[in-house]
Amino acid sequence: MFGVTILGNNSAVPAHDRHPTAQAVTIAGEVLLLDCGEGTQLQIKNYFVKRSRITRIFISHLHGDHYFGLIGLISSMALINRATPLHLYAPAPLKELIDLQLSISDSVLPYELIFHPLSGAETLVTTAKYKVEVFPVEHRIECYGFLIRENHAPRKIDPQKTREYEIPHAYFEKLQWGADYQTKDGRLLTNEMLTLPGKNNASYAYCADTLYTDSFLPYIQNVDLLYHESTYLDDFELQAKDRFHSTARQAAMIAEKASAGHLLLGHFSSKFKYVEAFEAEAREVFPYTDLSQEGVTYLV
Amino acid sequence: MFGVTILGNNSAVPAHDRHPTAQAVTIAGEVLLLDCGEGTQLQIKNYFVKRSRITRIFISHLHGDHYFGLIGLISSMALINRATPLHLYAPAPLKELIDLQLSISDSVLPYELIFHPLSGAETLVTTAKYKVEVFPVEHRIECYGFLIRENHAPRKIDPQKTREYEIPHAYFEKLQWGADYQTKDGRLLTNEMLTLPGKNNASYAYCADTLYTDSFLPYIQNVDLLYHESTYLDDFELQAKDRFHSTARQAAMIAEKASAGHLLLGHFSSKFKYVEAFEAEAREVFPYTDLSQEGVTYLV
Repeated sequence: MFGVTILGNNSAVPAHDRHPTAQAVTIAGEVLLLDCGEGTQLQIKNYFVKRSRITRIFISHLHGDHYFGLIGLISSMALINRATPLHLYAPAPLKELIDLQLSISDSVLPYELIFHPLSGAETLVTTAKYKVEVFPVEHRIECYGFLIRENHAPRKIDPQKTREYEIPHAYFEKLQWGADYQTKDGRLLTNEMLTLPGKNNASYAYCADTLYTDSFLPYIQNVDLLYHESTYLDDFELQAKDRFHSTARQAAMIAEKASAGHLLLGHFSSKFKYVEAFEAEAREVFPYTDLSQEGVTYLV
Repeated sequence: MFGVTILGNNSAVPAHDRHPTAQAVTIAGEVLLLDCGEGTQLQIKNYFVKRSRITRIFISHLHGDHYFGLIGLISSMALINRATPLHLYAPAPLKELIDLQLSISDSVLPYELIFHPLSGAETLVTTAKYKVEVFPVEHRIECYGFLIRENHAPRKIDPQKTREYEIPHAYFEKLQWGADYQTKDGRLLTNEMLTLPGKNNASYAYCADTLYTDSFLPYIQNVDLLYHESTYLDDFELQAKDRFHSTARQAAMIAEKASAGHLLLGHFSSKFKYVEAFEAEAREVFPYTDLSQEGVTYLV
């Protein structure tokens, strides 16, 4: 189980006390940041996200409402003398921009900023506890979605059986990952004899910003929690399409097609002062829908 | 008379509910923005500054806490389809940065952004109502202060006398600016015979960030309201000098030497949770001192 804290749920111009896009995923003691709109470093403080625990930042695309807060956060980390490396996954041009910003302020970061340019679907991160995959979505400019999945071993040790067959502890990790065991006297003990089904690997897909499209469905199939942008209501379907955005109903259709467990809506247009209608519209198609609310942590 | 609204009074890392530097000067129906730290566009909303009235933005230097909010504000103005030109006065490298940011998001501004690179002391703006001058201050990188002064005519019409001598209205403006008047029959009426002393031209000097130095005193002499940074208290004098900042006492000494009417302190270091001590320290040297408080408008 892990958590997704919403730091901003508005699109483009901040309005109605809603902030531009940013989300903090807390997993295995680390914080992964998904997008970083202006003011994210303040929202992090407001909602008690541990800045020092941020290990990786993922930027979906280079529209300002998804990254204008990045340079401020990076600079503040420098001012408080962060020493641990920071990984940044983003479209390639962001590297040049950060370098320019550091150079014109005559600044050198006291920590290592490791830049990973995005280019297409791939696995970006594999740790003992989680994986992050990236996949293309369809927006006006180069844009990506991210899938975060726990990386628990698929099986867990059956303590009774491993005692009974006197399996050495050193072999447990192999068993958890599915290996069989050969005894000294040559007998094969199959994995199923020594292990039980492991924990479900919870998964979260983050899709912002994107046109309504089936093109990335294969990457998010059966995800436990799906965040899909819903900039508009269905009344504005043409406008949504024109601007490479989606409506709440369309987000729900994607959740339905992906057999997602749950849907979170966000990236609401500033033209909507109240956003309850987004939830109602989406629930007609996909009942397990919630509005992403700033400051709230959704468990996956 | 005009107003200075404090949008941010903190230095470097935002903390204790204090924001990075930005001030809105409301003069003659226009808003002039002095610096634009991250989140300025939100602070503008919070404190009811009219975004559409912003005609000119002045950036003192390219440390992030003084300009990271600029691109967000410029972009939001584009998203709400601003049409009127915007003047930007800043160190030259900012132009390249803005161009790069617009280009990587594939954006074109719908309004004209007129960039004026700063290079030394000069008069930047002269309108019928106010003037803005720039002067160098001393910081780790190229950095400027700004002086805003009302530009009322020095004399006002004496209606009794102008009626008595039958002076045509068309000549009034010349009289306000000090001209004498020659009657049709060749008699000279001196300016003093036709006018009264005009309004005082109120002035505001903004000095951030700077080392304690006399070098820019000539530019701010007799200013009505002086904002001088005070990042530290006097206990941290060495640290202030090392980082090209000032203490509250030093700010007060500058106010005293400049014969300023009033002093505003700001740019408080995040290490200070409470800032009342800054006021007390400065008042020992210069009694007419106040803390700049976010959301408060100081009249000049």
